Formats: sequence, C-alpha cells, structure tokens
Amino acid sequence: MLTLDGLKLKKCITIDELKASVGQRVAFSACVHKIRYMSGFAFVILRTGRYLIQSVHDEKICTSDISALKEGCYINITGQVKEDKRANYQLEIILESFDILSLPEADYPLHVSNKHLGCSIETNLEYRSVALRNPYERAAFKISEGVVSGFREFMLKEGFTEIHSPKIVAAGAEGGANIFTLKYFDKNAFLAQSPQFYKQTCVAFFDRVFEIGPVYRAERHNTTRHLNEYIGLDFEMGFIDDMTDVMNMETAMLKHILQHLREHYKNELEITGAVLPEIDSIPVLTFFEALEAIGSPRKYDLEPEDEVKLCNYAKEKFGSEFIFITHFPAAKRPFYAMNDPENDKLALSFDLLFRGLEITTGGQRIHNYKEQVAKMQKMGLNPDDFRTYLDIFKYGMPPHGGLGIGLERLVMKLLDLQNIRQASLFPRDLTHLDP
Amino acid sequence: MLTLDGLKLKKCITIDELKASVGQRVAFSACVHKIRYMSGFAFVILRTGRYLIQSVHDEKICTSDISALKEGCYINITGQVKEDKRANYQLEIILESFDILSLPEADYPLHVSNKHLGCSIETNLEYRSVALRNPYERAAFKISEGVVSGFREFMLKEGFTEIHSPKIVAAGAEGGANIFTLKYFDKNAFLAQSPQFYKQTCVAFFDRVFEIGPVYRAERHNTTRHLNEYIGLDFEMGFIDDMTDVMNMETAMLKHILQHLREHYKNELEITGAVLPEIDSIPVLTFFEALEAIGSPRKYDLEPEDEVKLCNYAKEKFGSEFIFITHFPAAKRPFYAMNDPENDKLALSFDLLFRGLEITTGGQRIHNYKEQVAKMQKMGLNPDDFRTYLDIFKYGMPPHGGLGIGLERLVMKLLDLQNIRQASLFPRDLTHLDP
Repeated sequence: MLTLDGLKLKKCITIDELKASVGQRVAFSACVHKIRYMSGFAFVILRTGRYLIQSVHDEKICTSDISALKEGCYINITGQVKEDKRANYQLEIILESFDILSLPEADYPLHVSNKHLGCSIETNLEYRSVALRNPYERAAFKISEGVVSGFREFMLKEGFTEIHSPKIVAAGAEGGANIFTLKYFDKNAFLAQSPQFYKQTCVAFFDRVFEIGPVYRAERHNTTRHLNEYIGLDFEMGFIDDMTDVMNMETAMLKHILQHLREHYKNELEITGAVLPEIDSIPVLTFFEALEAIGSPRKYDLEPEDEVKLCNYAKEKFGSEFIFITHFPAAKRPFYAMNDPENDKLALSFDLLFRGLEITTGGQRIHNYKEQVAKMQKMGLNPDDFRTYLDIFKYGMPPHGGLGIGLERLVMKLLDLQNIRQASLFPRDLTHLDP
Repeated sequence: MLTLDGLKLKKCITIDELKASVGQRVAFSACVHKIRYMSGFAFVILRTGRYLIQSVHDEKICTSDISALKEGCYINITGQVKEDKRANYQLEIILESFDILSLPEADYPLHVSNKHLGCSIETNLEYRSVALRNPYERAAFKISEGVVSGFREFMLKEGFTEIHSPKIVAAGAEGGANIFTLKYFDKNAFLAQSPQFYKQTCVAFFDRVFEIGPVYRAERHNTTRHLNEYIGLDFEMGFIDDMTDVMNMETAMLKHILQHLREHYKNELEITGAVLPEIDSIPVLTFFEALEAIGSPRKYDLEPEDEVKLCNYAKEKFGSEFIFITHFPAAKRPFYAMNDPENDKLALSFDLLFRGLEITTGGQRIHNYKEQVAKMQKMGLNPDDFRTYLDIFKYGMPPHGGLGIGLERLVMKLLDLQNIRQASLFPRDLTHLDP
C-alpha cells in the first residue's frame, strides 16, 4: 500500500543551484518565454517562477526538435550549464533534450516577452492572467511578498502576535458611507473597513498584535492611488507612553523591510529598476507646522497635493523620503482616536507620507471606557450600537496605539509605479471585478 | 525638531529575559490577572502577552499600596526576580513598586483567572473580548500563529511565492448556493469560496504559490466543525507528475509545522495539554478501498462518521493519526478537478483526514483548455461565464495541483478542542456576527 513520508519533494531550481552547476548537466521545468532563431541555432529564453534563463538550441546537440516548441508552452529540459558573461546571471544552458508538458491553445494577446508590456492599464487588466506573465509585471508581486515577509519577521521578533480577524462585520470602524453591505443570513452586515476593533480587542490579552489581511472601502474614487479592496498591514501595541512609541516602531519596521528587500529581492529590484529609500531618521511635523512649511492656508486635512509638497519639503530640508505628520484636527479623525490633552481640538493621530503619498494612518487610541463613551456621544454616535466594542474598555484596556499601512501603496512607491493597480494582482476598482 | 530613528524601541519582556534576571531588578508591564491575599502578604498573578507570572506583594517591601489594585487593571511594575521551584517558570517577582496605568470600569463577567472558563460556548462568545483573556482560551491563537508561521516558513523555503487574491469576486469557485452575495457598485458580486482560480492563475508565472486568507461559505450548518468565515492555508504547484507530488509536499509541510510548534510554542502546548501527533509516513487509500476498509456500502462522498471510522482504522492498522483518501467519485468534485485517465468516473482528488476530521481537500487540476471546456459543458456549466478563468488555459498552463487546509480545523484537532469556535478569535456562524 502507498504511504507518503514527505522526504523526497519535487524541487524547483534556484539561480544559486544553477550557478553551482556550471560545467554540469541539469534538469528543470520552465515556460518557453521567447524563441529567437539565429543562423544555425536558436536562443530559447526559459521562464522559471523567478528567473529568465537563456538556453541555446543547436540541432547538432539537442535531440529534441525545436519546431515543436512554441512561446508559452511548458517544458522539462536537460542541458549543460555554461558560463556566459553576456547572459542573465552570467550563465547559459546548452539544451540536450526537452519534453513538452503542455501547449497553449492561442498566442499571447500581449507582448509578454518584451521588457515592458507597452499596453494601457486597461488592456493589461483585460488580459490580467497574461499580463502577469511579463517579468516586469510579476516582479512587483515578489516585492510585495518581500514587504510582507519583512513586516511579519519584524513583528514576530518584537513580540507581536499574528491575528486573523473577521472581514464580515456588524459595524464599520471608520464610519461613513464608504462601506460595502451584504446580507449575512437574516442580518445586515458589512465588509470590514479595517481590523481596528479586533486588533484593539486583542491588545487586552496579547499586548501586541499584527494582522495582514484584506481591507474594504466602497469609495467611488477612480484614481491612480485608490483600490476598493487592498491588503492592510496593521499593528496595535499596548503599554505605550505616547504615540511616538508607535511611530518609532514603524520606523524600525520600515528599516527592517528595506533591509529584507535588499538581502533577498535583489533580482526583482534589478528587474524593476527600483531605488530603495535610505532611512536614517524620519522627521516629524505637527499638522499645523506642516501647513506652514508648505505655505498652505489652515484646513482640516491634507490634500493629495499637500502630501506631494510635504514630501518635497522633507527631502530638501531633511534629506528624508519619509515624513510623519502628527496632531491632526480631531474632527477629521475617527472616534477611537485619543484627543490631545493639551488641545482638545487635536487628535493624537499621525500619518506617514512617502514619496508624495500617505501610506500609513495611526495614533494613540482612547483606552478609558467613560472617555470613549463621551467621545462617541460628542460625535453623534450612539454607544448602544457599539456594545461589544465598548466591552473591551469596560473590562479594562492598557494605554495603546497602532497603525495601518496600505501594502499596495507602499509597493507602488517603492517601485515608482504610476498606477496602484500594478501593485495589486487582481485589482478591485469601480469597474474591475473580474478576474 | 523631533526625528525618529527606530533605534530604541518599547520592549515587552520575555520569559528568557526574566530567567536571565534572577537576583536582579526588572521593570515590565502587565495585567493584574488574579490577587490572592495570604496572611501578611499577597500573590499578584501578572498576565503578560504570553505568560502568567507570580509576583508577591509584601507591604514591608513594596512602596505601592495593594488596595489600589484590582483584577483586570494594567500596571507597570518593578521588582526583584527570585527563583521559586513551585511557581510557573520557576520564578517569582518580589514587587518593589507599581504604577496603575488603567483601571477597568467593571469586574469580569467570566471566570477569567480560572484555568478553564467553565461557561457554555454561548456565554463565551457573548463576552468574547473577556473570554479571550483566559490563558487557556488565548493559547489556541498562539498555536494558530505557530501553524501559520510554520506553514509560511515551509512554503517560502520550497520556493512558493506568497500571494494575496481578492475576496470580492465575480464567480464562485466551488459552485452551488453556499455563497454570500453582495452589491459591488452596480454589479452583483460574491465572497470568495476559495482562492482556487487565482492561485491557478499565478502558477502560470510563479510556478508555485501559497496564500493565507479568509474563505467564505454561506452554509446553513450549525455544527461544532463548521464556520462561515475561516482562514484557508492554500497552495498550488506547477510541474507535478501526479497528485502524490502535492500530497508529499503536504506531508513534509505538516512535519515542518509540528516541529515548529514543538520548538517555539512549548508554553502553549503545556497550557492546552496538547499532544501533538507524530508523523512518520501517512497511509493512502482510494475512496473505494476506504469504504471497504470500514465496511461501508458504496456511496459518492464520505460522511462525518466515515471520517471518524477511517481515522480509527488508520490509527489501529498503520499507527497514523492522518490518512489520505484519493480517487473520489468525480460527480462530487469540482469542475476543475482532473479526471482519472484510467476511470473517467473518478477524480484525481484527495482529502486528508486527521483525528476524525477532513482538514484538507486537494488534487490535480485540469491544465488543458479543451479538456476544461468539455468538463464544464458536461457538468452543465456555461464556459462563457468563465471567460477570464478559461484564459489561463488558453494561453498555457503547466500540469499542476494544490490543496486547501482549514486553519481552524487543524488547530481544533491539534488541541483537541470540542468546538471549532474555540479556534476562531471571532467566529462567524449562523447566529454570530458581533463581535
């Protein structure tokens, strides 16, 4: 009878293994990315899950017939690894044989094997499953993986517990009309605008938590910087002295992520031509200091153009591509934000701006039951609608704060992408629901 | 002006740090979990994010007044660490002072400081934010974290790319009526029943992918083993020879997860009294062999009681707490399952059973465009409804397969929990939507 012990696994080849195999025979699987016929031989560019590897088909050497090959087919190959300074990764495979595993039914409708697809974002999304086969397009999602891995590694190291909170919820955390509604059996429900209530709840017993999960905003925006479903990188920490503990944690976390990318994602940084920011220290301005710095009239919130101006200001004045803005007018911040004890019109709330875009909102939260009830009432909310949320304060909460980062916004800015949709595998916006 | 460099972070204390501090003064933050007044002194049990630590208040030593303390309040303490063989972790803190950071408004409505809450699951869920403060209840979610960390670590090591696919989708992957619907702007949409289409799509360019994310099933079940929103641990791999490549990968992955738990979650394994399974090799039976082994009449799918019987059978006959069942009747398997070329009535599909419960469904998928269109038609589906999904086959796919694991089911069985709701922080079932 068959039993499985997991000792011998199907492997996929890495570039380090190929480099270590120069002068030897290798066997691996790949997609035929491109065929270039030369006089007397052909280059067959092989696409593995991460690399483009140059192979050479010479009918005097290879026992398999190249005329059976087609761009987009998947094959198993055997060949000799040869050093070649001109090729990607300084190596080349001299094909000895191949087996075709599957053939496509049709030619790619996009220029997958070009360096850039060269089509509109609309066409890209129309043929999304094909567009992502382009190495430049797919590289953004390896970078996403790296950001998420770096985030998680840092959080676990700092004693945060990873949680998973429900996305079908009874009430919105951010309020307002920007919320998707659904029928949950016989109840009315919503899609979570953030894990805010849940991560606060978990601070009561885990002290520090983080979550990586989808976030929903039913905004009718059609811009290059909004998605209706995105991945939130959230954390919440107890026992803070004030919100600078949260901002300092974020600073260290961003440094860790950048270091993680430099160490493990060099390949994709090269493909995308990304220039990662250097973080020494991040300057902090209050909201009103920030308005003054860019010569803006007083207002209640930052506009997109203010974010651009403030980033330019931080770059010129402090040599930083990041800037924290703190102490926003409380009226524009959510009901769970703690007000500044020195000025009740301001919230202990901050944004982090990066390369012209807000990538984080965070702050210190109210932890006292009566203070939370009073603020809800003052903001016209009915505390009875938040019974289970208010329970966490009623039965005790430590002082705490936290933040949320939009993964796609961070990746967009790290890679200098022009449209946030290029940082989402299958973006959800006003018009795109499929695939 | 303030700048932040992330060099000095707010720390939370670990048990190793405490052990290394015997004979020294420490300072840390905690929740007052329990106070036990003795003659002339008091035990104050401190709950940190992971541990219960015994401290002793003696008014001759501690400068702070114990009468101000209350179970459920959050404090900063300083004290001397002393070895004490009778205490948790063989150590005790002699309190020197404490500051109260926050006081609860009301006493816990549950017996949080008891070893077990001793209330019904209904009461537990009614006061969920309080119930989770009980160390036994919360331990399940550290174990969850460990399962997820072990899964991710293994997948990354084996060259899988982590992806995030949308949960608002245009079509259900599993078909049927068990799907939540919502209005997405002017379109009708659904909540994803699995990341199936998306992970297959990504195999075309990443070869191997995995995802950790929510999964939605609108089943009107009210059992101890069903949730309507749960966390799926999914992977999909290209270039398989057959589905045993997938099953073998899962076997190795489970071994890795168990090893990860043994190494890093000993604390929670002790709190929960969990006995982890040993995996040497996992036996494999075909569906009809399995029915015969338990003396069942021929049928189309396994019933819950069959799963129990098969696990007992595997334990007795092979000494394994896991058993794979393969080659299910194709009629009960989804349209993307590849049929057995030797018997068209069977699908190349498998389940993994553990301690009486199905925790995984997986299999080899169709990768040929015409074969997929034909199977859809045979099953009464209209291929036009699946244009973007069929695109992936039209433009080429390698042979591939994968699986999905229900995180909460795995944790439930690892910890021998009686109800799956105890393995979900904020469970979603027929009646629970809040918190």
